[in-house]
Amino acid sequence: MTVTRTLAERVVTGEPAAIARSLTQVERRSAGVNELLADLHRHTRGAHVLGITGPPGSGKSTLVARLTAEYRARGRTVGVIAVDPSSILTGGAILGDRIRMTELAGDPGVFIRSIATRGALGGLSRAALDAITVLDAAGKDVIVLETVGVGQAEVDVLSAAQTVAVVSVPGMGDDVQAIKAGLLEIADVHVVNKADREGAHKTVSELREMLRLAPHTANGWDVPIRQTIAATGKGVEKLAGTFDEHHEWLDRSGERELRERRNAATRIRWMAEEFVLRDLRPGRADFDAAVDAVVVRSSDPAEAARELVRALRP
Amino acid sequence: MTVTRTLAERVVTGEPAAIARSLTQVERRSAGVNELLADLHRHTRGAHVLGITGPPGSGKSTLVARLTAEYRARGRTVGVIAVDPSSILTGGAILGDRIRMTELAGDPGVFIRSIATRGALGGLSRAALDAITVLDAAGKDVIVLETVGVGQAEVDVLSAAQTVAVVSVPGMGDDVQAIKAGLLEIADVHVVNKADREGAHKTVSELREMLRLAPHTANGWDVPIRQTIAATGKGVEKLAGTFDEHHEWLDRSGERELRERRNAATRIRWMAEEFVLRDLRPGRADFDAAVDAVVVRSSDPAEAARELVRALRP
Repeated sequence: MTVTRTLAERVVTGEPAAIARSLTQVERRSAGVNELLADLHRHTRGAHVLGITGPPGSGKSTLVARLTAEYRARGRTVGVIAVDPSSILTGGAILGDRIRMTELAGDPGVFIRSIATRGALGGLSRAALDAITVLDAAGKDVIVLETVGVGQAEVDVLSAAQTVAVVSVPGMGDDVQAIKAGLLEIADVHVVNKADREGAHKTVSELREMLRLAPHTANGWDVPIRQTIAATGKGVEKLAGTFDEHHEWLDRSGERELRERRNAATRIRWMAEEFVLRDLRPGRADFDAAVDAVVVRSSDPAEAARELVRALRP
Repeated sequence: MTVTRTLAERVVTGEPAAIARSLTQVERRSAGVNELLADLHRHTRGAHVLGITGPPGSGKSTLVARLTAEYRARGRTVGVIAVDPSSILTGGAILGDRIRMTELAGDPGVFIRSIATRGALGGLSRAALDAITVLDAAGKDVIVLETVGVGQAEVDVLSAAQTVAVVSVPGMGDDVQAIKAGLLEIADVHVVNKADREGAHKTVSELREMLRLAPHTANGWDVPIRQTIAATGKGVEKLAGTFDEHHEWLDRSGERELRERRNAATRIRWMAEEFVLRDLRPGRADFDAAVDAVVVRSSDPAEAARELVRALRP
């Protein structure tokens, strides 16, 4: 007798084709994707989700490739999700970077995927969160989420990471300052990449000063600044060690649970928004009737929305 | 016997202090603002809402001042709402521009307000839509909504306008092209301001070419290109005439009703989102319980959101 396994079951056994198909469904928000994600959610095992963010040109992609190799050397399986709005514009520049990760391409313990959606940035962030669920259920030990770190939606995505690393490079001037300022409060680790460049010491001391001035979160984690040269791999082993230390600290301090709750809250809110906007749109009889009522002033937008929300049965 | 009138009643009689107070409530989203807007919505009279958008430096503010004077000369009352995210950053640069509209400052038939909110861009757009409701209920004949025209939220705001004018200036190069491309499908009128500058003819012919290539909406309105020199007022009278023609065409073609419905739909959806996100947040007992369930995997984000949405009683 042939037993047909569901897509979710195949993902849970780590089958690459099933992971790839699920991620495509996540990107396209295909019919049935919510049911798939619900099934997968119950099989998530709590991978170490690592958010790596930094401006274009900071060498993030190379750093992620090196880190992946380092984790593999430590016997861990790795999933990489590259979220970059520019991939929508350039039509796959990021994927190009990935393909350069040739040494990792044939390794069944590594799954790499660029996430792009045709929708708005919010859709991209949503797809990235869901991709974490897929790779976590597939049993990856470490999931690396690579983003350019601009915009509120991306910050929301990074809140799904247990460890957030912000990458800077020497000599990028005020742009970097601006990026860092927005990300300062979510950075668990700072990485100065291309640390053989002139100005690396200056960048490190600027970061140190910034951290000194930042209001202490008083949770007992001193945000470290690590220097790397991703091109040669220098500093990457130490960086991976720092990420492990942070992961252990999360468990010890109770912070891990706080972050899981924050992440769950974000996911619930995004799902609720999706349900509401899916059911409240032109073409639905009750919505069209509400629009009529508002146009003729027998109702107002708040009252109409209130009635529609009360009647929602997603 | 003293009769105490409500704030909404005072707005409806056009009292400037009541309009100002209502707009402050709209900006701050004070308690009771939804009730105020519901009252005001029933008193809106269908002002001609004019959206004027263009890049910084295109002379929008001067053009709006000239147009306002022109409408006053035609005996119409005017409300101006300036929406510009930069006003958040510069702390009132726009308001500075407004104050330069000295000839209009003492005119009770004109109400001018810059809209800024401390929240996200979405909050700003929301406040702008609500400000239209206030000024419409206050009986302004024409409401001019001035925006820099970037981002989806701003495009949503412009969808509240009956007539959308996109302002370009000669010699701004590719930036202008990029802005125009995104706004092309919502422009009812193109304005080339600073038309005495070198390159004005080139800009006009580029626009003409762009319009020729754009897929025709086939609704019978030929998008005109008008040239103005806002600094001297040249072309402004003709532009106001074009806006009037468009307004008449909206009524004749049935397009006005379509736009009113689209606008009502946007307002209802935004209100619904607000209700959902207000009630689905940490600190609410049912939300916190749902977060717990998702964290321990006895539920998943979609199921949790579904149950919470079903229970909503905004």
